[in-house]
This record gives sequence, structure tokens and C-alpha cells, in this order.
Amino acid sequence: MIVVLKPNVAAEKRDQLVEWLKTMGLGVHISEGVYQTVLGLIGDISKVDADLIGSLEIVDSVKRVSETFKCCNRKFHPEDTVVSVGDVKIGGGNFCLIAGPCSVETEEQIVSVAKSVKEAGAKMLRGGAFKPRTSPYDFQGLKATGIEFLKIARQETGLPIVTEIMSVSDLPLFEDIDVLQVGARNMQNFDLLRELGQMGKPVLLKRGLANTLKELLMSAEYIMASGNENVILCERGIRTYSDYLRNTLDLSAVPMLHELSHLPVIVDPSHATGLARMVPPMALAATACGCDGLIIEVHNDPVHALCDGAQSLRPEEFAALVKKVSAVREAVSC
Amino acid sequence: MIVVLKPNVAAEKRDQLVEWLKTMGLGVHISEGVYQTVLGLIGDISKVDADLIGSLEIVDSVKRVSETFKCCNRKFHPEDTVVSVGDVKIGGGNFCLIAGPCSVETEEQIVSVAKSVKEAGAKMLRGGAFKPRTSPYDFQGLKATGIEFLKIARQETGLPIVTEIMSVSDLPLFEDIDVLQVGARNMQNFDLLRELGQMGKPVLLKRGLANTLKELLMSAEYIMASGNENVILCERGIRTYSDYLRNTLDLSAVPMLHELSHLPVIVDPSHATGLARMVPPMALAATACGCDGLIIEVHNDPVHALCDGAQSLRPEEFAALVKKVSAVREAVSC
Amino acid sequence: MIVVLKPNVAAEKRDQLVEWLKTMGLGVHISEGVYQTVLGLIGDISKVDADLIGSLEIVDSVKRVSETFKCCNRKFHPEDTVVSVGDVKIGGGNFCLIAGPCSVETEEQIVSVAKSVKEAGAKMLRGGAFKPRTSPYDFQGLKATGIEFLKIARQETGLPIVTEIMSVSDLPLFEDIDVLQVGARNMQNFDLLRELGQMGKPVLLKRGLANTLKELLMSAEYIMASGNENVILCERGIRTYSDYLRNTLDLSAVPMLHELSHLPVIVDPSHATGLARMVPPMALAATACGCDGLIIEVHNDPVHALCDGAQSLRPEEFAALVKKVSAVREAVSC
Amino acid sequence: MIVVLKPNVAAEKRDQLVEWLKTMGLGVHISEGVYQTVLGLIGDISKVDADLIGSLEIVDSVKRVSETFKCCNRKFHPEDTVVSVGDVKIGGGNFCLIAGPCSVETEEQIVSVAKSVKEAGAKMLRGGAFKPRTSPYDFQGLKATGIEFLKIARQETGLPIVTEIMSVSDLPLFEDIDVLQVGARNMQNFDLLRELGQMGKPVLLKRGLANTLKELLMSAEYIMASGNENVILCERGIRTYSDYLRNTLDLSAVPMLHELSHLPVIVDPSHATGLARMVPPMALAATACGCDGLIIEVHNDPVHALCDGAQSLRPEEFAALVKKVSAVREAVSC
Repeated sequence: MIVVLKPNVAAEKRDQLVEWLKTMGLGVHISEGVYQTVLGLIGDISKVDADLIGSLEIVDSVKRVSETFKCCNRKFHPEDTVVSVGDVKIGGGNFCLIAGPCSVETEEQIVSVAKSVKEAGAKMLRGGAFKPRTSPYDFQGLKATGIEFLKIARQETGLPIVTEIMSVSDLPLFEDIDVLQVGARNMQNFDLLRELGQMGKPVLLKRGLANTLKELLMSAEYIMASGNENVILCERGIRTYSDYLRNTLDLSAVPMLHELSHLPVIVDPSHATGLARMVPPMALAATACGCDGLIIEVHNDPVHALCDGAQSLRPEEFAALVKKVSAVREAVSC
Repeated sequence: MIVVLKPNVAAEKRDQLVEWLKTMGLGVHISEGVYQTVLGLIGDISKVDADLIGSLEIVDSVKRVSETFKCCNRKFHPEDTVVSVGDVKIGGGNFCLIAGPCSVETEEQIVSVAKSVKEAGAKMLRGGAFKPRTSPYDFQGLKATGIEFLKIARQETGLPIVTEIMSVSDLPLFEDIDVLQVGARNMQNFDLLRELGQMGKPVLLKRGLANTLKELLMSAEYIMASGNENVILCERGIRTYSDYLRNTLDLSAVPMLHELSHLPVIVDPSHATGLARMVPPMALAATACGCDGLIIEVHNDPVHALCDGAQSLRPEEFAALVKKVSAVREAVSC
Repeated sequence: MIVVLKPNVAAEKRDQLVEWLKTMGLGVHISEGVYQTVLGLIGDISKVDADLIGSLEIVDSVKRVSETFKCCNRKFHPEDTVVSVGDVKIGGGNFCLIAGPCSVETEEQIVSVAKSVKEAGAKMLRGGAFKPRTSPYDFQGLKATGIEFLKIARQETGLPIVTEIMSVSDLPLFEDIDVLQVGARNMQNFDLLRELGQMGKPVLLKRGLANTLKELLMSAEYIMASGNENVILCERGIRTYSDYLRNTLDLSAVPMLHELSHLPVIVDPSHATGLARMVPPMALAATACGCDGLIIEVHNDPVHALCDGAQSLRPEEFAALVKKVSAVREAVSC
Repeated sequence: MIVVLKPNVAAEKRDQLVEWLKTMGLGVHISEGVYQTVLGLIGDISKVDADLIGSLEIVDSVKRVSETFKCCNRKFHPEDTVVSVGDVKIGGGNFCLIAGPCSVETEEQIVSVAKSVKEAGAKMLRGGAFKPRTSPYDFQGLKATGIEFLKIARQETGLPIVTEIMSVSDLPLFEDIDVLQVGARNMQNFDLLRELGQMGKPVLLKRGLANTLKELLMSAEYIMASGNENVILCERGIRTYSDYLRNTLDLSAVPMLHELSHLPVIVDPSHATGLARMVPPMALAATACGCDGLIIEVHNDPVHALCDGAQSLRPEEFAALVKKVSAVREAVSC
């Protein structure tokens, strides 16, 4: 940690600060510049409160030089992590397509969509049973019944299932789920993260609406520090001043997360854009910049064909997209 | 709800849409413009998915004209809500100062700060026992012990206590707490909100880091729709591209929330700015634009005087601020 | 334009508003809902001030239903615009790579880079002669001399040149330039836009740091309404709360701008990320989602090999990227 | 400047970097930490490109420790600057109210508003003659005629006039204007700033829509480095994800700018909120946190009373506000 003092600090005050830092067991290197003095702190600085030091009257600024995330840091674990879900693998060159409806609606619907997406090339099935909704008056999901329907779809197709968990108290219902998804709004629900860290199951961790990459990695760290290394990171769009699209898909997060961490990174173009017709171009773009997989909404409803969900692809659209995704993967790996 | 069709839509497709809307039990008023047709939907549109309609090929855009929040909406409840905590009242002209340390550290500390802030004019004591931290390696609070120390401080001073709850599973520990705070990161932890709605206790609901006013009100709605009307809204700074301050305190939220809702609105200038020296000017500004109270960090530590928390006022600074706050309240009410 | 009145507005006030709207020569359709009255305005609403109507006491909200941009609107011009620069074309299936150094430094440098990027497949040369710098103490570019060096590089290679113009008063210096670039900070320098509209030359218009797509299109409209239809739009990253990258490259702007407008859309991954190693993945992603070209910083400096500009590729890196870009173009068009 | 190297950098590469830095005439202090090496650069680092050094393979990060702004920096000029406009003063305890219509419409209008706001306590008159508009189809102002009307209003009332300049080429028209306003969209129109630096006239510099405080100060620096010290900074709201208000008024900018700079800081609550009824609370808040003045839109139009501009106060509302502003100033200064 580097502590830059303000110009012309009295020697006495500076020494007082150095003494206090030493009482914390730190080594302090003093470097006198022409205008300013810089202190280099050495030792276990994990317990040092940088904000607090930064607020001292004689301190200009503070800079950490060592990383605050460890388990998920590529510096300490250079090889890609490969997360295994049954026979399916994600990361380290293994690309994984996850598809399915936003919400589980009926047994028929989820089984039908599962069959369609499997045929098109999906390796896992997604579907919401517990739905986080901004309004208490909106549909909150089929809950336990939805979970049961997902299991039936898995039985019928062999696809592992991914579904969102919103609360520690629902954990018993998720015992037989393959991948537990933490939604954007719960990215910093630290109790939930810790609890998921104590299970062995893979966790799909979505980036929060306005969270930085560092915060995302620190949330992965909560899960990993509790003992679970099977974390899949997911970029799903951030909140900006976008006028025509729901969110801004931050694709540069993909190569940057790969540089910072060894964890697999997937992208959700459906929630990011909110518009089905924007999903294929953004899915291809995500593939081109190196993501390890995609999670895409697909809905199959011949009766209400007029009213596909705003952001869901039809199975045939998904199948066409899968082919292009493969072609792009080949193109960038050549 | 208003549905604007694209120009030159085939009459057949338009009629198909109108029929479908009518099957949902809605009345449909058709208004033909020179360029575009506009449908006005009448009836119970609470179950209509605006995004879904907006995604139809023939639809240009959709606009809700009735509010989605009801319980907290001033339209349906014109008088200010006054939340009572023992003898202390917030809202409807009752101004409430809440003060105390960021974290409860020791019994001596919290009792000492409680006495100081009470003497200076605070009406409630704040102090964190459960601390949401970005990093799993940072201090997470004294938890149950912290709660006990808070109760002792209450006993010594008579000040009601406000402290943050992070998880439904911790609820039993909070049975004897006066006001339960929901932190910014949990503003959309809907399970927690619903659970708090089933208790009678006042809830202090902080705005999330990048949440809109509508989302804040919808979260209040979760609590109120579950039966608890004692909600206090709190603006605490939003995330922008600020370079010198931690967050951007959005004070215009104060008069706007007062216009939209009857709930009391308080402001937290300590977390918003992250710098003790910025707390007094922003506390005065918040008062000047009509907030119903302030929640301010105050720390009392003569031994480590060198190291006040970055954003905490010393008791004497708080006392000086309280006087100016009163003066400003008088100035704006004249 | 649709005007939604507040609930329970007195009939007299409503009629007063309707009368006033009619005095502006507008037709007014009144639609009475169960809760609210909605007025549909018909006629020439281009002179109507929506904000002003929205501020009236009895008005709840106002919504324009017709587009405010016309010349660049795909609705009125369904075919892609193809911008021609000598033999080089951009748009309508014509992909164009623009490359070169951030700043023109010397004649040797720009000629050398020009030759390298031409060999690698670039079709135009970029290079800054006038540099917009946040600080008045930073290097502001070689100005007129830089323009001369660019022309020499053009002569040596045949590559048309693209360079930034910052001020109307510099226009005479740009008479022999092929494409005039308007930088992000000048996207709403309306005088400059109008002036460029009166020249026939192609304009490369960069999106401002925090501007919406609509604002970008309205700035294109300034140029086009003044008579110049040769506008190339450029996404170059927007300002968010990014922690590891300079800006957030908003790639979803590419397909959305293509939907809204017939103008070609290119992407600048160098300025968006600020890091050379992030340029290739983001260039490939931009290609995959359908952009009509890329503008990339390339620097060629064997003497200072230690110190390439933070965001510049070396010529050999650029050449390798060009091949992958072609492969991705083929993959997505199959 | 501090350069933090990556862990385990080869000594040879480190030495190569140190040598290169020394060739720039810099002193280099090497501090070896347990994990990382830190270089402290001493000397004239104004010409050092921090981004470039940060991009080197062996460099982890770079941090400037000295300020990049000088003329406007309070460190080098501790006393408040007082800007004088005739007899009117702003800054250093001199509070200045500027008021007037958004646009100059007619001679009668501007003279009438000028008289009203003078009577209410305004010390300067504002009014737009050149209007920056997002759309080329919107009213662009009366231009030269508007300037003439402003001068007539000045003659009638004695109020100095403030009006926006959008282009260097319009400068001759502004020779007899008292304060030249640079609008938010032109905050980084560096040519304009430099030109204004060469005139002696006071400049009112508005913060750009998404600019940081440092960028605002660097733009002031452009004016001051060119020789003009009469700069007034103005906070007018920033772009965020606000849902009910046009922009987010960043009032914490007021005390922070006062800390960083000696220049006067005023606030524009009219443009920030876009709603007349939000102007008084935000004007009072701005006053409470220490601004040196306010610039407020006031319109006086008995004929079109139905249609006040969305964000303009009526003269009587302004007069009432002025009284409260005085009361708040007294309250906070006690």
C-alpha cells in the first residue's frame, strides 16, 4: 500500500503517522520526493483500512498495490478453471450454450422448449421458477412447482438445469438443481453467497446492474473463500443512460475478466438488450470476444405466436443462431 | 395503457392485436392519427406485460398512464405519513436526527457515542452490528454481540436504535430493535422486504446504488403491500463517474419523492460523500430542500484521534452541525 | 403527440388546454379512459414544445409518437447509405478498415505507418494533427504541419486520409482532406456540424462520451439537414463506472443504429478500451455484430519499442487482426 | 508520479525501464516491497504520459501525486477569487443572483423580466440569444437581435448581462456583453476556451453533462492559462439514470470545488431539474452548501399564463425564493 502525504507536512505529524502504522505490524519505507513524501507499507495490509488512512488530514491519497481478491485471481492460479456439470464443461476452451424460457410456465412448455433447444445444440436448460420482480404485483414465478417441472424436463432431455435462487431459506428446494444462478439484484447478497460457498454445486453469478468488475470478482471471492470453486461469471448488461435498449451490454468485461481471473465468463444477451432481434448480433459479438458460453432466452408458444416475450427467441431462431456462433468460434480461433 | 402502432400497419394485423387485447378483458379505444394509430387500453391492466406488447412487430411503443405503485403513492394518500418510534416521530413536519458510529465496536464506544449524540440533539442512535462488506476478508461486524451493545446504549440513553438487517435468517436477533434498516445492496432483496412487511416495525429503506426513484418506491411497495406502512425512505448517494467523492448525493430525490409519495424521506450524507468534511454542507443542503431527517455517522475516539473514520464526525462537530440544521429548518419554513 | 392528463382534471381546465392546442393549428382527439383522459394531437407538431406542455399543472405526461430525426431515419430511407471516399466505400455491405497513429509525429513516422497498415489491408489512413486534450499543458498536435505530413503519406500510399477537425476556423486547412472527423467532445458543437453540412466531404461523426443514440442521430441530422448526406457514425465507448477500462464500448449501439438509420456505423475499439491488448477482441466483437468498419490505432516505432502508446497496436499485431476480422465477417454472413 | 511494477518482474526489464525514465530527465527512487517494486519519479513529470507508462507489460499501475491543474488550484492560491462585473461581485463571500428567461423572445419580454428580477433582488440578467439545441429543427435563438434586446434591457435596468456564446466566429457580437457563458456542451470546446482566455471578460463556465470535476477544472485552466482569471464555475446537473428529473444536480460538487479551487462556484437549478416546482428546493439546498450564486430561469408572460416554460419561475415565485435564499445564507453563516 502506498500512502502519499500532502505537500509540506510537518515532520512531527509525519513521524506520528509512521509510528502508528508500525504499531499495526507494518514495515514503512519513506520516500521523499521534491514536493511530496510517499510511504510504502509492507507486510499484512489486508486489515488496513485504506479509506480511513486516506481521510487523515496529512494524507493526500492512498493506493493499494496488491490485489484484494485472491481465490479468483489469475495471478495466483494461471490456468483457466473448468467448471463441470455432469458431462458438460464450461471454461478452458469448453464453450457452453444455455437456453430456455424466462419463466417456467407449464410442464408442457418447459419440456417442449427443452427438447427444441437440445436439438439446436444447447447443453443446459435455463428457466426461472423464482422470479425477482421490481413490483410486488407482478408474477413471482411458479416456485416449487416450477422446480419440479424443470426436473421433469431434465429427465426427458438429459439437459442439466440452471435456475435462480433468491433466498437462503429456499435452499432445500434446490438440492437437486445442477447450477444455482445468483441474479444481478443479489450479486451483493453476501449471506446468500456465503451459503452457496458451502455447497459444492456450481454457481452462475450474474454481474449487478451497476457493479464494477472488481465488485463482481469480490462476490465470487465470497463463494470461493467459503470453499466452492465452481463459479461461472456472467455479464448481463449494466445500467447507463441508454435510450433504445434496456441496458448496455459491457462486452469488454469478457476479455478483462479473463485477464483478471481464471473463472469462466458467459454472457446473457437477452436481458442486456431486452429485444429478441438484438440477441443474435450481441450473442455473436460476445462469442467473438472470447466468452465461454451464452445464456439465451428461448420460448416456444405456437398458440400465442403473436406474443413472444419481448426478448425471447423462437426455437428456430435459436437454432440458426447456434450455427453462426459455431462459425464465429472457428473464425476467431484460427 | 397506450399502445402506439407503427406507421402503415395492415388493418388485418391491427385488428388481430385488438382482438387479442380484448380477450384479456380490456377495453380498447382506437384513435387514428394522420401517421399512426394509437390504442388506449382501459380496464385492469395490472396483469398486462408492457414489454411483451412493445416487442410485437407492429407496435412502436407502449406507455403506462397509471401508476404501478399504490400503497406509497401520494395520489391515493395525500397526507404525509408520520412514522412513530416510541415517542419519536418522523415525517409530516417532524424532523429526526439519527446519529452514531458506522460499526458498533465495544460497549464503551457505543454508550459513549450514544450519550454524546443525545446531548447534541439526536433522537435515535444508529450503529452497525451486521456490516455488508464488498470483500469477504473485511470486518463483518460484531453481529449478535453488537446488537446487545446497542441495547445497552439504548438503556443508558433512552434513544431508540436503528441497525441494519442483512438476512431473513437473522430476524430473531432483531426482535427488540426499534427500526430495521435495509441497506443499499439489499434494496431489491425482495424476500427480505416481504418478510419485513409482515412485522409491524418501522423500516428504514435505503436507495440502492444505481436504482431509480420508481424502483425505490416499488421496494417500499413490497413492504407496504405485505402490511407494514411504517417505511422511511433514505437517499444515500448514487453511483456515477464522480472523481473526488465516493458517490453522488442526489438531493433532488428529496422533493421528488415527497411529490410522488407520502412517506418520510431522510438523507445520509456520510455514506454519500465518504468524507467527514463534506458531511456538514451536504447535511445542510438536504435540510434546505425539505428532508424529514438525517442519518449521520459520529465517532468518539480520543485515543485514536489520529484515525477517525473517513466519514465520521466527532461529537463536537456533530453538535455544531445540529445547531445549523435547526437554523436552516427555520429559514426555509418562514 | 400524446398528452396524458392527470386524474380528475376539471372539465373546464381540460377544455381550456384543448382550445389552446387548437389555436396552434393542431387537431385534438380526446380519449376518455376510466381513470385518465388522453389527448392525441394531430398535425404539424414539430413546433410544439413537449416539455412545456408536460409542465402544465393538469398534464401527467407527454409522448411524441413521430420521430424527430428525418434525414438519417431508416423509415424514410430504407436502403443503406454507401459513403464513397475516392474508390473506397463504406456501408451497404462495404467494410472499411481505417488505421494509423493517434498523433502524427513526423513525416517518417506517418509514412511508415501508412505503408504498414496499407499492406495489412487498411483502406484509409487516420492520424491526428489537431488533438483535443483535457489539459492545456498537454501536446496539442502538429496542426498544419501534421496535415502536410498526412498528405505526403497519402501520396506515398494512395490511402485516403481521415483526420479530426476541432474548429470552424481551421476549415481552410482541411480543404484537401478526404474525411473530416468530428471527435466525441465536439459531437454537439452545432456550429461546426452545420458548417460541415455545407461541404460535400464525408464526415466521420463520433458519439459523445455520454450521449444517447438519439442525440448522435440528431447531430448527424444537423449535418444532413445542411445538405451533406455523407455521414459515417462511430461508436467509441461511453462513460460509466468502469474500473479497469477507460470507457465502456457500447456494441449494442451497432445493430440499434442500423435499425434506426441508414447511415454506416463504424467502431473505434482503441479509444474505448485504452489498452492495446483489448483492441483485438473488441474489434472482432464489433465485426461480429455487424459494423461497417473499424478505426484502429497503429503505431510503428522500433526505437521506442519499450513504449508503444497504451492503446496502439504494432503493425504486425494489426495485420494478424485484419485476418481474423475477415474470418469473422465471413462467419456471420454465411 | 508513482509507478507500481507487476510482481516478479525480471531485474533486467526493470532496469531497462528505470534507464528509460532517467533519459527523460527524471529522478527515480526504487522501493522494493515484499511482493512488488514501486518506482517514485521525481522532477518535471508534466510531459510524462502516464497512460503510456501504464500500458507497459511490466507495469501494474501508475499514479500521479501532483496536481495537473495549476492556475485554478487552491493549493497555489489559497484566497477565494472574487470576480467583478461592474459593481457586482461574485465569490469570497459575495453572493450573486442571476435571473432571466431561457430565451430572449422580444424586446418587451426581456425588458419586463429584467425589471421584475431586478426588483426581486437579482444582480445580473441572463437570457439566451444563441441557443444550443439537440435538434436542427428547433428554435435556435434570435442571435444578433437577441443580443441587442439584452443590451436594451441592461440600459433600462442597469443589470449586467450574461449570455451564452457558442462559437469563436460569433465573438465580435459579444464585445459589449458583460459575462460570456460557455454551455455544458461546449465545456470541452478547447478552441473556444482558449479564445475566451485572451479576452479580459468574465466567463461563466458550465460543467458538461458527464464531465468530472477534474475535467471542469482543466477547462477553467484552458481559460486561465491563456491569461483570463475571471472564471465562474457552474454546476448544472449531470446525466445519470434519473427517471423523474431531467438531470441529477450534483450539489456535493459545490463544497468539493471550493476545496480544490479558489474560483467562485454557482448553481443552475433550472436546467438541472427541468421542472419549475423543483427549482426553489434545489436553489435553497445549493445555498445551504455554500454556493456563491444561483442562475435561475424566470419568465413573465401574462398572456400565455397557461404555458410557462417547464422550468421557469414566474417573477413572484422568484421574489419569494430570493427571500428564503437570504434566510438560508444567514442560517448557515451563523
